[in-house]
Amino acid sequence: MHSIHEENIEFIRDFARLDVNRSDRTGIPEAILAEGKTNDQVVAAIQRVANKSGIALATRVSKDRASAIRRALGRKLRLTFNGLARTVVARRRDFKQKLTGGSIAVLAAGTSDIPAAEEAKVTAEVMGCKVFAHYDVGIAGIHRLVEPLREILNHEVSAVVVVAGMEGALPSVIRGLIPVPVIAVPTSTGYGYGGRGEAALMTMLQSCAPGLTVVNIDNGFGAGATAALIANQLANVRSAGKRSSSKH
Amino acid sequence: MHSIHEENIEFIRDFARLDVNRSDRTGIPEAILAEGKTNDQVVAAIQRVANKSGIALATRVSKDRASAIRRALGRKLRLTFNGLARTVVARRRDFKQKLTGGSIAVLAAGTSDIPAAEEAKVTAEVMGCKVFAHYDVGIAGIHRLVEPLREILNHEVSAVVVVAGMEGALPSVIRGLIPVPVIAVPTSTGYGYGGRGEAALMTMLQSCAPGLTVVNIDNGFGAGATAALIANQLANVRSAGKRSSSKH
Amino acid sequence: MHSIHEENIEFIRDFARLDVNRSDRTGIPEAILAEGKTNDQVVAAIQRVANKSGIALATRVSKDRASAIRRALGRKLRLTFNGLARTVVARRRDFKQKLTGGSIAVLAAGTSDIPAAEEAKVTAEVMGCKVFAHYDVGIAGIHRLVEPLREILNHEVSAVVVVAGMEGALPSVIRGLIPVPVIAVPTSTGYGYGGRGEAALMTMLQSCAPGLTVVNIDNGFGAGATAALIANQLANVRSAGKRSSSKH
Amino acid sequence: MHSIHEENIEFIRDFARLDVNRSDRTGIPEAILAEGKTNDQVVAAIQRVANKSGIALATRVSKDRASAIRRALGRKLRLTFNGLARTVVARRRDFKQKLTGGSIAVLAAGTSDIPAAEEAKVTAEVMGCKVFAHYDVGIAGIHRLVEPLREILNHEVSAVVVVAGMEGALPSVIRGLIPVPVIAVPTSTGYGYGGRGEAALMTMLQSCAPGLTVVNIDNGFGAGATAALIANQLANVRSAGKRSSSKH
Amino acid sequence: MHSIHEENIEFIRDFARLDVNRSDRTGIPEAILAEGKTNDQVVAAIQRVANKSGIALATRVSKDRASAIRRALGRKLRLTFNGLARTVVARRRDFKQKLTGGSIAVLAAGTSDIPAAEEAKVTAEVMGCKVFAHYDVGIAGIHRLVEPLREILNHEVSAVVVVAGMEGALPSVIRGLIPVPVIAVPTSTGYGYGGRGEAALMTMLQSCAPGLTVVNIDNGFGAGATAALIANQLANVRSAGKRSSSKH
Amino acid sequence: MHSIHEENIEFIRDFARLDVNRSDRTGIPEAILAEGKTNDQVVAAIQRVANKSGIALATRVSKDRASAIRRALGRKLRLTFNGLARTVVARRRDFKQKLTGGSIAVLAAGTSDIPAAEEAKVTAEVMGCKVFAHYDVGIAGIHRLVEPLREILNHEVSAVVVVAGMEGALPSVIRGLIPVPVIAVPTSTGYGYGGRGEAALMTMLQSCAPGLTVVNIDNGFGAGATAALIANQLANVRSAGKRSSSKH
Amino acid sequence: MHSIHEENIEFIRDFARLDVNRSDRTGIPEAILAEGKTNDQVVAAIQRVANKSGIALATRVSKDRASAIRRALGRKLRLTFNGLARTVVARRRDFKQKLTGGSIAVLAAGTSDIPAAEEAKVTAEVMGCKVFAHYDVGIAGIHRLVEPLREILNHEVSAVVVVAGMEGALPSVIRGLIPVPVIAVPTSTGYGYGGRGEAALMTMLQSCAPGLTVVNIDNGFGAGATAALIANQLANVRSAGKRSSSKH
Amino acid sequence: MHSIHEENIEFIRDFARLDVNRSDRTGIPEAILAEGKTNDQVVAAIQRVANKSGIALATRVSKDRASAIRRALGRKLRLTFNGLARTVVARRRDFKQKLTGGSIAVLAAGTSDIPAAEEAKVTAEVMGCKVFAHYDVGIAGIHRLVEPLREILNHEVSAVVVVAGMEGALPSVIRGLIPVPVIAVPTSTGYGYGGRGEAALMTMLQSCAPGLTVVNIDNGFGAGATAALIANQLANVRSAGKRSSSKH
Repeated sequence: MHSIHEENIEFIRDFARLDVNRSDRTGIPEAILAEGKTNDQVVAAIQRVANKSGIALATRVSKDRASAIRRALGRKLRLTFNGLARTVVARRRDFKQKLTGGSIAVLAAGTSDIPAAEEAKVTAEVMGCKVFAHYDVGIAGIHRLVEPLREILNHEVSAVVVVAGMEGALPSVIRGLIPVPVIAVPTSTGYGYGGRGEAALMTMLQSCAPGLTVVNIDNGFGAGATAALIANQLANVRSAGKRSSSKH
Repeated sequence: MHSIHEENIEFIRDFARLDVNRSDRTGIPEAILAEGKTNDQVVAAIQRVANKSGIALATRVSKDRASAIRRALGRKLRLTFNGLARTVVARRRDFKQKLTGGSIAVLAAGTSDIPAAEEAKVTAEVMGCKVFAHYDVGIAGIHRLVEPLREILNHEVSAVVVVAGMEGALPSVIRGLIPVPVIAVPTSTGYGYGGRGEAALMTMLQSCAPGLTVVNIDNGFGAGATAALIANQLANVRSAGKRSSSKH
Repeated sequence: MHSIHEENIEFIRDFARLDVNRSDRTGIPEAILAEGKTNDQVVAAIQRVANKSGIALATRVSKDRASAIRRALGRKLRLTFNGLARTVVARRRDFKQKLTGGSIAVLAAGTSDIPAAEEAKVTAEVMGCKVFAHYDVGIAGIHRLVEPLREILNHEVSAVVVVAGMEGALPSVIRGLIPVPVIAVPTSTGYGYGGRGEAALMTMLQSCAPGLTVVNIDNGFGAGATAALIANQLANVRSAGKRSSSKH
Repeated sequence: MHSIHEENIEFIRDFARLDVNRSDRTGIPEAILAEGKTNDQVVAAIQRVANKSGIALATRVSKDRASAIRRALGRKLRLTFNGLARTVVARRRDFKQKLTGGSIAVLAAGTSDIPAAEEAKVTAEVMGCKVFAHYDVGIAGIHRLVEPLREILNHEVSAVVVVAGMEGALPSVIRGLIPVPVIAVPTSTGYGYGGRGEAALMTMLQSCAPGLTVVNIDNGFGAGATAALIANQLANVRSAGKRSSSKH
Repeated sequence: MHSIHEENIEFIRDFARLDVNRSDRTGIPEAILAEGKTNDQVVAAIQRVANKSGIALATRVSKDRASAIRRALGRKLRLTFNGLARTVVARRRDFKQKLTGGSIAVLAAGTSDIPAAEEAKVTAEVMGCKVFAHYDVGIAGIHRLVEPLREILNHEVSAVVVVAGMEGALPSVIRGLIPVPVIAVPTSTGYGYGGRGEAALMTMLQSCAPGLTVVNIDNGFGAGATAALIANQLANVRSAGKRSSSKH
Repeated sequence: MHSIHEENIEFIRDFARLDVNRSDRTGIPEAILAEGKTNDQVVAAIQRVANKSGIALATRVSKDRASAIRRALGRKLRLTFNGLARTVVARRRDFKQKLTGGSIAVLAAGTSDIPAAEEAKVTAEVMGCKVFAHYDVGIAGIHRLVEPLREILNHEVSAVVVVAGMEGALPSVIRGLIPVPVIAVPTSTGYGYGGRGEAALMTMLQSCAPGLTVVNIDNGFGAGATAALIANQLANVRSAGKRSSSKH
Repeated sequence: MHSIHEENIEFIRDFARLDVNRSDRTGIPEAILAEGKTNDQVVAAIQRVANKSGIALATRVSKDRASAIRRALGRKLRLTFNGLARTVVARRRDFKQKLTGGSIAVLAAGTSDIPAAEEAKVTAEVMGCKVFAHYDVGIAGIHRLVEPLREILNHEVSAVVVVAGMEGALPSVIRGLIPVPVIAVPTSTGYGYGGRGEAALMTMLQSCAPGLTVVNIDNGFGAGATAALIANQLANVRSAGKRSSSKH
Repeated sequence: MHSIHEENIEFIRDFARLDVNRSDRTGIPEAILAEGKTNDQVVAAIQRVANKSGIALATRVSKDRASAIRRALGRKLRLTFNGLARTVVARRRDFKQKLTGGSIAVLAAGTSDIPAAEEAKVTAEVMGCKVFAHYDVGIAGIHRLVEPLREILNHEVSAVVVVAGMEGALPSVIRGLIPVPVIAVPTSTGYGYGGRGEAALMTMLQSCAPGLTVVNIDNGFGAGATAALIANQLANVRSAGKRSSSKH
């Protein structure tokens, strides 16, 4: 009775072979969002990904959960817990992190923006990037812009993640001063009307600064991954250029 | 059967006498919001207020309506139509505008913020203030801040109205640089998520800059009136001080 | 490759010198929002600000946190915890609070509006103002308006903070009766549709009473600071007038 | 196969007999909402209802549509078009409006609230009530409360419809001063945040004044019908008392 | 400098005399909303109101708080705690509840609507009404309508409170079947889109059934008070008629 | 450099072959949403689909556009414009509509719900179903339920589309009375809070009647297609049963 | 005085007889939503329904509550608690579950979508259906579609429940590949803008895939019941066909 | 009295020199948003920018306005109007567009998404990029993905702009298949709940596909500019590599 016949199933199966290696296909390794999973589920997922890819990143990991992961996997894998970022990075003992040569910057406007900023930083580092991080760069303290801007310009970072809550104006200001793409991360700070990140998200989407794109509230992982993806593209070309150049 | 007796009505009537002269009581003259009224209603209201107080301000007046007002009242009153502000100011022919000595500044971020800014300016002028206006002062063009800031500081304005749509970050930036109260006016520009002034209003309310207060979207009249109220308070004291001083 | 050259960095650095003394620049001392910070961060911030400026204000301080602050700083600084306002004021032992001569009033509509009102009061006091406070001034109990109105008029306060939740109509009523600026603070009371301060904020922004401006929900600090800023401007002029007058 | 058998259908049919005379059952005559119907549909509905009940009320009738109705029905029925209320009342030529003896009051805060107020007034009159109407009763002009309050008290009206847009505070104020039920009608005036009647509706629902209930934005018909329903209940009892009394 | 002179203050004071006896003025006794108050504040308020009026009603009283009230006031006043309604009624030992002769009905759609329904019931009883209550009257179980409808018709109740959450359709159905005013109470049940009472409130406001008015989500007190106000008006007239009749 | 190699592209191409015949794959023919397309685009799409499948359905077609379509295609295809449904059905001249034997019912609550109801009806007819339609079946007029219910039961319809705006309660009521799936269509009628279909959609999603599912506001096409899909499944089985039975 | 007379009450009572057997009338057995009820209320309801119908389904049952139910009813009824689905199924000891022959599929996109999916599965099983369940079928892992699609096609399921949170795109993708109705269940996962199921619900309602209908967020019960209703209709016809066929 | 002294103004002026050449500083040329400006303002802005930079881009230009621009500037500048994109590109007659060597792709899901897609395309072309555009790439027609994917992979584009309205799922699907950054543009299509681009925006922000960032609804300009910025960075490095390589 049904109109999709057996051979069609085969097409789907073939198509699915595309999915064998997600990291190759998308340029970003698979991450495990710990929130909403049981400890057992998280541990199993870390183990599976680390075994396959050598390195696994789990995000939104509470301190207690990090301890549970350590108890379960501490002998098999090298684990790093970042309490601010709430991330666990697990590496197979034979895994060697390669630096891609890509570099990005991560700026945060205030204290409560640091967790999302650190999540972005850890993500980009897992992807082999060098990360220049500067926190407490509010628009009220314009002198705090000097050091990050200098670094961004000196080190030729390829993309900048800017994290801000409350009024969320920092990414627009930064984007107006540097010639690299800015990925804006609104954070769920703020209160009353426009609280929980809504004002920051809106303002970032309304920004008249082209070259600024946005991820969802508190999504440091997505911002860090995008910035690293851009930086790694560039680093690939640069090193290809150098290889080509060195052949001569 | 009813428990409010006749004498209570008298209390209300007495209380009502407070309302004889609204301008004296609130420090701000009565304005006529033309929107949602017929031409006849607007004309009648202008005439009533101008006769009583010497000067009347009508806001949200379209060009066509301004012509109709001129036809009806042009001989009886001196009329000024400001097409940008969409205001009509009507003065009794024997009315002499007195300058209070108060001064404010009005800044606007972009072209589409000018109507609200002009409405604020006209309102403050009707209230006897000197107004320093600077438009096109976006956060993307920081050099455009130089002239307005110099003027604000040189002329010791008492309050600054800052008008902005889209991302609405300008008032926070301005407030961070000058020691006078800032009244922020979000405008109904912007598009998509946060459009129609919502992002600007949210961002202004979320602003961590104390000394910044907000009026509703496009409410140039309210902002100008508040700024002039502050400036006139100050001018009153200053001239009282001078009078007192000159007596010696 | 980058187009902002080294000398531009210098400009930013120069510009940053403006930021040496925030209080001088904005007229309002730096405050520490305790919420979203660790105890250590709050303690460090209080110490830094108090050392620099003689006095520090921390807001949104829970009772437990206040105790922690006392344990950490109680010997070094004089600390005052206001449990209603949830503020800690820390003063260097050599610091002498100067009264500016400015005065404001703070009115609250109901019991649950008192915390925001007290936050406004403490803020204005830290800024050297005299504060006349009246709570439980609902629109349902019109007789309760008598005492505050008399005081506002007798003492010539320069600005009035009006705090209200639920239907939020009090600021409009007050503004209609007195000739000084009203700063309206919606509070996160109320329930159901329009609860959490939304109805109050909306109503205050919709108010047809010019001279009324608004801060975000529960932002007593911002309202108190603005009112004190206005009052201190006035007091400065008044005392300048007196000095000038007394010279004769 | 189906489990509702033929006899069940009979029950529904029997139950439906309840609907023969809607006005008897609900105490309110059927009204025709013209909006969203064609002229032909409106005309047919007016004719059907007027023939059955002697009187028909059509609401949201534009001036053009009223002319079309007049052309179609002007000879058969006596028609009254109220341009402010946007209502057409059609009476069979043999129909005699009976006054029930019920009386209500309708108050409106501003000029743009008059259409909803008039719709309420016309509805209550069609239901046989006497209506005391007072418009332009804003909370900013407290002296304008004197006359309506006196009338409400003198004439012992049974319910008061209070119509207000913008900040929508008038119904709460009125309800706090009189011992009869208040039906609040928010109107779609206002602008920016809380515009289109949202702030007024919220504020009315948040009102802490018991005895105040609310209908949807601009629903003058519903408010007038409810007030008249209350007034007619009372008038019925009163005249029953008188009849009973006069028998003695 | 100020334009409201001393005599104006006197007017306000006079006007305030209106407020001496709130219950007389509004027809509804003062109630104490316990939520958001400390135990001490609630106890003091109950004592003040009960002393003045003989009876006091406190709403939103948790079980623990009821115990605290009992400990504080149990000897001085007769206390009744209704755990479903979350109300405490306190009566002076010399207070005698008079029945006004008014009667209302309270219907609830589901189990989770009972608290708001009971709050309405207790409120109307405190106001001297007889209350016919029927719970679990969902639109899915139409046979459950028989008993309440019969009672409403037999006992000639003057108003009906209908409480419903989720889809909130019950009040419209009820209003279509009986000729008395319906006061609809949406409750904060429901989930997902339209949860927390929003769908119920919207549907009730959208209802095309005239004679139906709405209070805010979970506001059983307001609905009960309004229904009792209507019923007491009627009972007053009825007993006046009887008195007048019996004189003959 | 890229990790998806040439052969992967082949998989996608293979997978795409699934899409050759959309109607076979999804059981619903491709429809052309005219809104947001130019006349030329609509004409081309109708021609393409009709040529391929023999029949094409265009929705949201204004009267003017229908005329343009007729001018362009009237000779090549047989066209039927339904002004209420705003649909054009185009049939190849050699196309013979087959009845599937499936039957559904479409009910609408009010006059303004008819367009969405007709769109559902036309859609189901294009899919070969018999459609029993009843409009003006409001919950206020319960006797109007008799005829549709009888028909639904007598003709053993397989699914019922119920269209309602305003309070949107009809689908729940219907679903409570019949043992077939109900597909609810909210319409963009209604006004004020919950207007534009929001209240109806919410109420339908909150409905406690299982067996009721919802499509987006005004989506008559989606509802009709789903109902017909269900009915055709059933008709297929039924005729299969008959064929099988008749073989014996 | 009232216009609904005694005989009308009888009609309602008659109409109510329709409600004797809800399951027969609606095709879906009565379920007990445990949330918002006390343990005693849930226990009583389970007992009542199980006694009447042989089987009872309680949803949203926490683990603790399940234990309480077991203690109260474990001897009288056979109880099955599904911790993932949070359901308790109670069967009379003499009850024999009959398979209807209907079959559906339940697909879930991610780990946090499993509870709603299991709720749908249990519901359909209680209704006598065979359920093919596949979880973790995200659109990012297209190869995971192979197995479920094959099963859906092989087993000729009559309807598919697709559960998804976050971006909620899975149901549209599935619906585009199979010729049976899809019932989409958004789940309250996701974060920031569009979190708590809002994005998923919106996307499902916006889906251009006809044949896809939606239930409210997390409403696995409603989706499972609808799918089973469709499947049972089909199974009834199929077995009727077989019976008819076997008679020959 | 003011605390910002004359020299501070100098710092601001110096800082402002940074702004001399916006394109150099941000990597994106200044664009003129025509909406909300008068024809004169647009003409003046185009002339100013074209004179300074050789090329000017105006967006949101209606056909009528384009004619007006042509009349005003057609002789002075070479003008290209793109009616789909609603853009005008103006080039100084001596201006030679240089290709940077960067390349991007632009995909659109449906017909109504083409304007935003074209706006992105024109923007990237003005910035010197090669643009591969494919429209009508819906998730319902998966075979239409083949050509764009092949091109993206063959031509090694550096970033992909994906434009989609309605359910907005296309960007997530695309991002899951290619290893380059995706910039998602929601469009203001769709209807009912989630219409006007809201569902698309939400879904894109909720997407679990890292490497996907979002711009505001209909912001084709911002997306195109960001993609071109990324591509030009890469092209710069590539050509630098080639130059360096060619030196050997």
